Amino acid sequence: MFLFLANFASAQTQLQLNLMPMPASVQPGPGELPINQSFSVAVTGNHDASLDGEVQRFETQLSRQTGIPFRPKPGATPALTIHADHGREAVQKLGEDESYELTVADSGAKLTAPTTLGAMRGLQTFLQLVQITPTGFAAPAVTIKDQPRFAWRGLLIDVSRHFIPLDVLKRNIDGMAAVKMNVLHWHLSDDQGFRVESKKFPKLTQAGSDGQFYTQDEIRGFINYAYDRGIRVMPEFDMPGHTRSWYLGYPELSSGAGPYTLEGGGIDPIMDPTRESTYKFLEKFIAEMAKLFPDAYFHIGGDEVDGKQWDANPKIQEFIHAHNMKNNQDLQAYFNQRLEKIVSKNHKTMVGWDEILHPDLPKTIVVQSWRGQASLAAAAKQGYRGLLSYGYYLDLMWPAARHYAIDPMADDAATLTPEEKKLILGGESCQWAEWVTPENIDSHIWPRNAVIAERLWSSAEVKDTASMYARMNAVRYELEWLGLTHNSARTEMLQRMAGNGDITALRVLADVVEPVKDYNRWDDAKGPIDFHAPLTRMIDAVNPESDTARRFTDLVQTFAQSGCKDQAAEAQIRGYLTTWRDNDARLHPVLEQSVLLKEDAPLSQSLSALGAAGLQALDYLDKHQTAPDSWKTQQLAAIDQAKTRQADMLLMVVAPVQQLVEASTIQHN
Amino acid sequence: MFLFLANFASAQTQLQLNLMPMPASVQPGPGELPINQSFSVAVTGNHDASLDGEVQRFETQLSRQTGIPFRPKPGATPALTIHADHGREAVQKLGEDESYELTVADSGAKLTAPTTLGAMRGLQTFLQLVQITPTGFAAPAVTIKDQPRFAWRGLLIDVSRHFIPLDVLKRNIDGMAAVKMNVLHWHLSDDQGFRVESKKFPKLTQAGSDGQFYTQDEIRGFINYAYDRGIRVMPEFDMPGHTRSWYLGYPELSSGAGPYTLEGGGIDPIMDPTRESTYKFLEKFIAEMAKLFPDAYFHIGGDEVDGKQWDANPKIQEFIHAHNMKNNQDLQAYFNQRLEKIVSKNHKTMVGWDEILHPDLPKTIVVQSWRGQASLAAAAKQGYRGLLSYGYYLDLMWPAARHYAIDPMADDAATLTPEEKKLILGGESCQWAEWVTPENIDSHIWPRNAVIAERLWSSAEVKDTASMYARMNAVRYELEWLGLTHNSARTEMLQRMAGNGDITALRVLADVVEPVKDYNRWDDAKGPIDFHAPLTRMIDAVNPESDTARRFTDLVQTFAQSGCKDQAAEAQIRGYLTTWRDNDARLHPVLEQSVLLKEDAPLSQSLSALGAAGLQALDYLDKHQTAPDSWKTQQLAAIDQAKTRQADMLLMVVAPVQQLVEASTIQHN
Repeated sequence: MFLFLANFASAQTQLQLNLMPMPASVQPGPGELPINQSFSVAVTGNHDASLDGEVQRFETQLSRQTGIPFRPKPGATPALTIHADHGREAVQKLGEDESYELTVADSGAKLTAPTTLGAMRGLQTFLQLVQITPTGFAAPAVTIKDQPRFAWRGLLIDVSRHFIPLDVLKRNIDGMAAVKMNVLHWHLSDDQGFRVESKKFPKLTQAGSDGQFYTQDEIRGFINYAYDRGIRVMPEFDMPGHTRSWYLGYPELSSGAGPYTLEGGGIDPIMDPTRESTYKFLEKFIAEMAKLFPDAYFHIGGDEVDGKQWDANPKIQEFIHAHNMKNNQDLQAYFNQRLEKIVSKNHKTMVGWDEILHPDLPKTIVVQSWRGQASLAAAAKQGYRGLLSYGYYLDLMWPAARHYAIDPMADDAATLTPEEKKLILGGESCQWAEWVTPENIDSHIWPRNAVIAERLWSSAEVKDTASMYARMNAVRYELEWLGLTHNSARTEMLQRMAGNGDITALRVLADVVEPVKDYNRWDDAKGPIDFHAPLTRMIDAVNPESDTARRFTDLVQTFAQSGCKDQAAEAQIRGYLTTWRDNDARLHPVLEQSVLLKEDAPLSQSLSALGAAGLQALDYLDKHQTAPDSWKTQQLAAIDQAKTRQADMLLMVVAPVQQLVEASTIQHN
Repeated sequence: MFLFLANFASAQTQLQLNLMPMPASVQPGPGELPINQSFSVAVTGNHDASLDGEVQRFETQLSRQTGIPFRPKPGATPALTIHADHGREAVQKLGEDESYELTVADSGAKLTAPTTLGAMRGLQTFLQLVQITPTGFAAPAVTIKDQPRFAWRGLLIDVSRHFIPLDVLKRNIDGMAAVKMNVLHWHLSDDQGFRVESKKFPKLTQAGSDGQFYTQDEIRGFINYAYDRGIRVMPEFDMPGHTRSWYLGYPELSSGAGPYTLEGGGIDPIMDPTRESTYKFLEKFIAEMAKLFPDAYFHIGGDEVDGKQWDANPKIQEFIHAHNMKNNQDLQAYFNQRLEKIVSKNHKTMVGWDEILHPDLPKTIVVQSWRGQASLAAAAKQGYRGLLSYGYYLDLMWPAARHYAIDPMADDAATLTPEEKKLILGGESCQWAEWVTPENIDSHIWPRNAVIAERLWSSAEVKDTASMYARMNAVRYELEWLGLTHNSARTEMLQRMAGNGDITALRVLADVVEPVKDYNRWDDAKGPIDFHAPLTRMIDAVNPESDTARRFTDLVQTFAQSGCKDQAAEAQIRGYLTTWRDNDARLHPVLEQSVLLKEDAPLSQSLSALGAAGLQALDYLDKHQTAPDSWKTQQLAAIDQAKTRQADMLLMVVAPVQQLVEASTIQHN
C-alpha cells in the first residue's frame, strides 16, 4: 500500500488519483472511462430515497465539476451501474456497513455494496476519480475495495459562541459526505447561547439566545438532510458547566444567585446538582430532546467544570459532606450518574467529555477525549468506549500535517490489548466557534478536516505527508464545487479590507501569514470576548495554514540540499523573494486607507525585509562570497523581529529566509 | 456637474464617490457618518411591504459588505431616517415617481421621497456611498437629489437558447436594482425552447422545451420578487418568426409542413398569419399570458422574419395577392394588426422590435430598436414611442466605453422636436443567450450593464470614460456582495480547465484576452449550434473586456507621451512584459494536460512573444539605440500573428506592444 502511494507521487505523467480519504485497496487498471454528454447512471439493486437522492446529487455535482450537461440517449448503456444488496437503517446506526467495491474500466464502471449507505460512499469516491485529461474528462481504470477503519468519524460544530445558520451547516454536511465522515456532533448549548427551541422550556431560547436558534421543524429537516447524506447527528447539551445561557430563563437551575447575562462576567455559573428540581427539569428536557434527535447517542458535555460556584454555595458544600463525597469531582460524578439514568431511560447512550470518566458510571457510556490520548487509553483500560478529539481541534490553527500525525491507536492506545482497542470507536474533529462567523467558518474547517477524515477512514499506514498535501489540495477544489466557501470567502474578505482597491499585493501578504496558534489569540482579549464584534481582520480571513510558506520552505530545503547549486530552485526562490521585497511599496497605500488593515503595516514591512535579506544572501552565495558578520548580525536582528507575533498573526517564511542568511555566512568559512 | 466629476477623479486623497448611476445632483458636505454596530434605520413616513422588505435587505447587505453585525441599543437615535410621502402602485407603472433626496451628515442621514419606490432607489445610493476609511466604515457627508432621465431602463434576458433558472435571474434582479434599472424584459420563447407553462396549451413546453421551463406559480413568485425590488417584468413571446419551439406541440400554427425539432435544421419556420385558427390560438394564449403577467406592456417580438416559408407556401402567396398586399412585409403588418387587437383587448400595450413599425398600427404601440438609432428616430417622427437597444447588446462583447458612448437622444434622435423626443422612453440592454449558461451569464452581463444603466438614468453630460471605469470597478465588487458571480465564476471555470493545477499562469493569459466581437464566434459554428454542448472553453470564462489590457494600454500611452522618459510607467510596463514573456513556460504544462486548454497554446506563445518584443523595444529605447530594421520586420510579423483570432479570442495587448516596437525603431532616425 505504501509503495503504491509512492508510485502515485512519482508518476507525474500518468493520472494521479486524488482520493481523500485513501481507500483500503486501490489497484490501477489500463485505460480510462470517458465522462462525456452520454454519461448516465443505473441503479440495478436495492434502492431507497437516500440512494436515489444521492445519485441525483452525484449527477448534478459531476455535471458542475466538468461543466458537461449530460444528455444520454434513451436506451444507451449506462456508464456507471450501482448495485446495493440491502437498504440502510431507518436511523443510521454506529457501525452500519459502509463498505463498497468500485471497478472502473474503459467500457464502464460498476459500484457494488452490501448497503445503500456503502453505495453512497462509493459514489463520492467516483466523483474524486474524475479528472480532466488531454482528451477529455475521464475516470481512470481502477479497482477499489474500501471500508472504514473506524466506525465513528465525526466533526463537532459549536453553534453557541457564534450562531451558524442551517445553510452553512448543510454545505458542511456536504463536505463531510465528500470525505466520508459520518457524525455531526452538534454543540447546541453553551454559556453564550442556547440554540434549540424547547417547547417545554421556551425561555431557554427566548431568554438564553440573541434570537438566533433552530426551531424543532428546522432541526428535523436538517437531520433528514444529514441522513440522506449518510451522516448521523448527535446533539450535545453541555452540563453542568458551560451553561450560563440556561440561567437567563431558568436561574433556579444554577448554583449561584445570578442575575446572569449572555455577555458574561463574574464567575462561570454551574448547574446545581443537589436539588431534585434540577433533575425534574432535566427529565422533561431530555425526554423532549431525545424525541427530537433520533440518534442513539446523546452527548451531555461534562467538560471544564469550574467548581467556584459550588465552593461558594454552603448548601452545596453541605450536600457534599452529607453524602460522603470527597470533592466537587465526586459531586459531578453523582450528577452524571443521575443524568445517565435519565438518558438511558430515553433509550439513548450517554456520551461525555473525558472529565466524566468515573468508575461509578456504567460501561455503556462513551468517553470523548479532548485532553490527551492518555485519557482515551485509560478509559479503554477501564472498559469504556472512547473517541479521540485531542489533536483534532481545528480552531487551534495547526497545520494539516500535525493533525494527520495523530492516530487514535497511537501513543498510550498502542499499549492496549486487542479487546481494549476495539473500544476505541474513532474520533471527531472540533470546530469551536469563538472566532468564526458564517463567513469564515468554512476556511477554518476545510480543507484540513479532510485530512482528519482520512486519518479516521484510511489505514494507519497511509501517512505520507507529501501525498497527503497533494491530495488535500485536490479536495480543496472539489469541496468548493460543492458550495463550500473556504477559497472564495477569503477573496471577498480581503476585498472588503481593501475597499475597492486592487488586492494583488494584499494577497501576497495574506498568502504567507497564519493566525497565532493554540489559544494565543485569547491573550489579547481583555475581559469577556464580545461575541457580536465583527470578525473581519486579516487574521479572520487568512488560511490556518499557508501553502505558499510550505512550498517556499520546501524549495529552500531542496536548494540547501543541493549545496546551494540547484539553479531551478534558486530561480523560484528569487521569484518569491523579489515579490516580497517589492510588496510593501505596493501594499502600503492600501493599508493606510483601511481601518481593518492599518495593524498589518509592520507585518508587511517585515515581509519586505525578509525578501531583501534573502536576495542578498543569494547574491553572496552566487558570488561564492561569505557574507560579512556585521551584515549577518543586522539580518538576524530583522529576522528576530519578523518572528514576533504581529496583529495576531505569524509570518511563516521566516525560518527558510534565516536558513538562506545562515548559509550565506558559513559557506566559505 | 462635469467639473465636479473631474474633481472626483483627481482627488485621490479624499473619499471618492463610487456612485453608479451618477445622481442628478451631488453636493459634498463636511465630515462623514460612521457605520458601526449601533447603525439602525427608522421609517417614519409611508411604508409598505416593498419598502419594509427593502430596508431589511439593505441592512443585511450593509452588514455583509462591512462585516459588521448591527446591534443598535434599544431607543437609540437611528442613523438613517426614511420618509416616503406615498406608497407605490400595486402594479409598477411606467413613469412612476422614482425620485428621492438623500442627505448624509456626520450626525445622521435622511432619505425622503415622494413614493416608497423612490425611497428604495435612495437606499441603493446609500449602499454605494459606504466605504472603508482609515478610521472605520463611513458614508461621506453629501446631499443628493436624484431622479431618472428615462422612465424605461431595462435588461433583456433570453432564456430560450439556454435556460436560465430562477435563482440566477433573481440575483440579476438584485443587480438591476443596485444600478436602478426598472424593467426585466423576459425573452421567454424562441426557436430553441418555449419556457413558460401554458395551462391552455401544455404542449408548448411539453414538446417545445427540453423539460426546462417555469411553472406559472414560479413566474408569479418571480414577478413578486422583482416588484419588491422596483422592477417591472415584461414578457416577450416572439412572433411570427423565432417560433420553431411552438410547432413541436402545435405544428398547425406554422407556415410549413414540418416535422420540427428543437435542434433545428432546414429553413426557419414562421407562423401562418393567413389562417383564422392561428388567431383563435393566440386569442386564448395571449389571454392566459396577459393574466399571468400583470405588467401593462406585452412584447410580441416581430424581428427577423425570414420569409422563406411564406414564399414556399402557395396558399400564403395566394392570400397575399387576394388581400392586395405587396409582399411578406405587408403580411407581417397584417399579422401585427390582428395581434395588436388581441393584445389591447387584454388591456395591454403592444411592444415589438423595429420591424413592426408600419403606419397601419395604432400610435399606442412601443417600438424597440435593435437595428439602429435611425429607426428609433423614424418611429418617433411617426408618433410612436420607442426604446433603444441598438448599441446595448451585451452579447456582442463590446467594451463598456462603447456602450457608454451610445445615447438614445444622440444621432438621428438629436434632430427630433421636443415633443418627438418625449416619445423616446429609454432603452434596454440585451443578453441573448446563445453562448451563456447559468455559470457564466453574470460575467456577460456585469459589470458592463451598470454602465448602460447609468446611461439611461443619469444626465447625458455624465460621460467621462475614466470616471466611468473607476466607478464601474467599484460597482463590480458591490454586485458580487449581492450574490452575483461575475468575478468568482471565472476563477472556478479556470480551475476546472486546469484540473487541480495552479491557475496563476492561466489567469495571466485570461487577463489579457477577450472573446471575438460581434457575431464572429458564429463563424466557426458549422450547421445549427448545439445549445446543449458544454460552454467551458477559455472564451466562455474570460471577461468580455480586459481591465489589464486597458491599464497596460494607458501605461504605454503615458510612457509614449512622456517621450519615453516616464520611469515609473516604464517600470510598470516592464513588470507586465516580463510576466508575459515568462508565462508560456509556466503555463505550457497546464495547457498540455487539459482538453479544454490545448487550443490556447498558440495564444500563450503569442503573449510570450509580445512580452519579449516589448522588453527588447524598451532596451533599445533605454540605450537610445534605434532598433535595426531586420529586428523590426521580424517583430511586426510576430505582432501580425498575435493579432489573429486564436481559439475564438483576441489578445488585447498587441496594439500597445506594437507601439513600443515602432517607437524603438523611429526614435533616433
